Amino acid sequence: MTDDTTTPLGDLVVMIAEPTAPADTHLAPVALGEARIAAADLAVTRGDGIFESIGVVGGRFIELPAHLARLARSAALLELPEPDLGAFEEAARRGLAAHSPAAELLVKLFYSRGIEGADAPSGWVEVLTGADHRAARRDGIRVVTLDRGYRSDIAQTAPWLLQGAKTLSYALNKAALREAARRDADDVIFVSTDDVVLEGPTSSVVVRHGDLFRTPRTDLGILAGTTQAAVFGTLAELGLETAEAVLSPADLASADGIWLLSSGRLMAPVRSLDGRSVPVDAAFTATLLTRTFGVPAP
Amino acid sequence: MTDDTTTPLGDLVVMIAEPTAPADTHLAPVALGEARIAAADLAVTRGDGIFESIGVVGGRFIELPAHLARLARSAALLELPEPDLGAFEEAARRGLAAHSPAAELLVKLFYSRGIEGADAPSGWVEVLTGADHRAARRDGIRVVTLDRGYRSDIAQTAPWLLQGAKTLSYALNKAALREAARRDADDVIFVSTDDVVLEGPTSSVVVRHGDLFRTPRTDLGILAGTTQAAVFGTLAELGLETAEAVLSPADLASADGIWLLSSGRLMAPVRSLDGRSVPVDAAFTATLLTRTFGVPAP
Repeated sequence: MTDDTTTPLGDLVVMIAEPTAPADTHLAPVALGEARIAAADLAVTRGDGIFESIGVVGGRFIELPAHLARLARSAALLELPEPDLGAFEEAARRGLAAHSPAAELLVKLFYSRGIEGADAPSGWVEVLTGADHRAARRDGIRVVTLDRGYRSDIAQTAPWLLQGAKTLSYALNKAALREAARRDADDVIFVSTDDVVLEGPTSSVVVRHGDLFRTPRTDLGILAGTTQAAVFGTLAELGLETAEAVLSPADLASADGIWLLSSGRLMAPVRSLDGRSVPVDAAFTATLLTRTFGVPAP
Repeated sequence: MTDDTTTPLGDLVVMIAEPTAPADTHLAPVALGEARIAAADLAVTRGDGIFESIGVVGGRFIELPAHLARLARSAALLELPEPDLGAFEEAARRGLAAHSPAAELLVKLFYSRGIEGADAPSGWVEVLTGADHRAARRDGIRVVTLDRGYRSDIAQTAPWLLQGAKTLSYALNKAALREAARRDADDVIFVSTDDVVLEGPTSSVVVRHGDLFRTPRTDLGILAGTTQAAVFGTLAELGLETAEAVLSPADLASADGIWLLSSGRLMAPVRSLDGRSVPVDAAFTATLLTRTFGVPAP
């Protein structure tokens, strides 16, 4: 035993006192159940901040640079001060080192406008034990399409609606998942008022037709998917064709496969869409999960 | 001096340990700067909760029952457990009693889904010193119209978008106010994609034509305004006509007066809309503020 051996924590939080300043201001990891945020923080009172969720498989971050870059993009869309990405990365690494090992973890970065009137943002990192997603990855999930209420050009015509930013204002995404449950489904694919396939409340959509894999274009008021980008890299290595596209519900109906991609669950095949069966290729999904993320074969 | 004389606090928070249970679980008021919320609370991580802002003028709550009723309506829209309104009211009264006196205060009620996975909501009350709104109430504010991106029937067709609930997911309302500032304006009136006047990011709209005062109908995916309802009561007492209506931008352009109504600022006349002057009747506004809310004449 050496001096720096400490008992690993379970789920925990690392506060970043000065998220726009260099990294020597980090506090030590604290257990999630003990971690507190100022009640006057605009993250609490207005959902006025942003976040990222980063998967960790076998102790390795998945697409950390892409998540840090997206944090910076979201900050710009909300006109937050530019976050110190090095400080977030170091807090994430310290948090990961302090957490008890697990096959999969989820690391969340939070960056808010800070205490109202104080003109200083706040930032922190959570490290959480991953849920068991094996059944969803193998057997697939039941999905319903829901109207997102916006046109597909909303990010260009009304940027103040913050479509394309990963904000802390996620109440409607949670409400959409409750609507899915009411319809006996597990998840949602949002569709625009002009009938364009968008994204899930917490995921990107990938649609297969033969050897062609497509995902909605990121100029449709949706998030650029980090997990989707990683999977597209693997598909290209396998000699398969990938594209960003404008997809319609008819493209979903005719698909040979549909997946929802996200940082925690990674890749879940859709086994039914609005009650109709969708083909699930469990072996192919497992191959993609292993090659892209190092997830052990189920 | 008696035993229960204590030094009044400045801005403060009263936590409600069990916001669905009777009121004997309240904690004592704590200074706002010391008040903390669990980092794992869904108010923090997802903006998954609701709030109310209640004006206090001369030590008296404005429309407290209406705000409590709206808290319960928002809770139902988000499928939160029914809040114990008595507990919130008692926490508000305790907080108000503990705050140092001021001409105007703002009392905010917060109710969130609580810590993720814990299946117990959290609730708390803030008491804040009111801003000085005298100039806005007297001289008026500059307003721009912005596209809200939704149709006016959105609350009926897509209830999962939570229009009409006062959620903690207010990032886009803050972004709209930044867009207004960029356009040299103070505030915003949202318009639907089918050209219906909706509401401000934190206010209701009232439009005057002669002796007729109208406000957008609450079935248009907007909040029922508590301040607006109180002012309509006064207008009726004065023998003026009031109505809920479907209003278009043309109705704004032809108006003899426009006001934005909210719990803190109460009633601000619009002096310009998208750069064009709008008539301001300062004496009439002052009369309504005094009769409805007891605000002293300026």
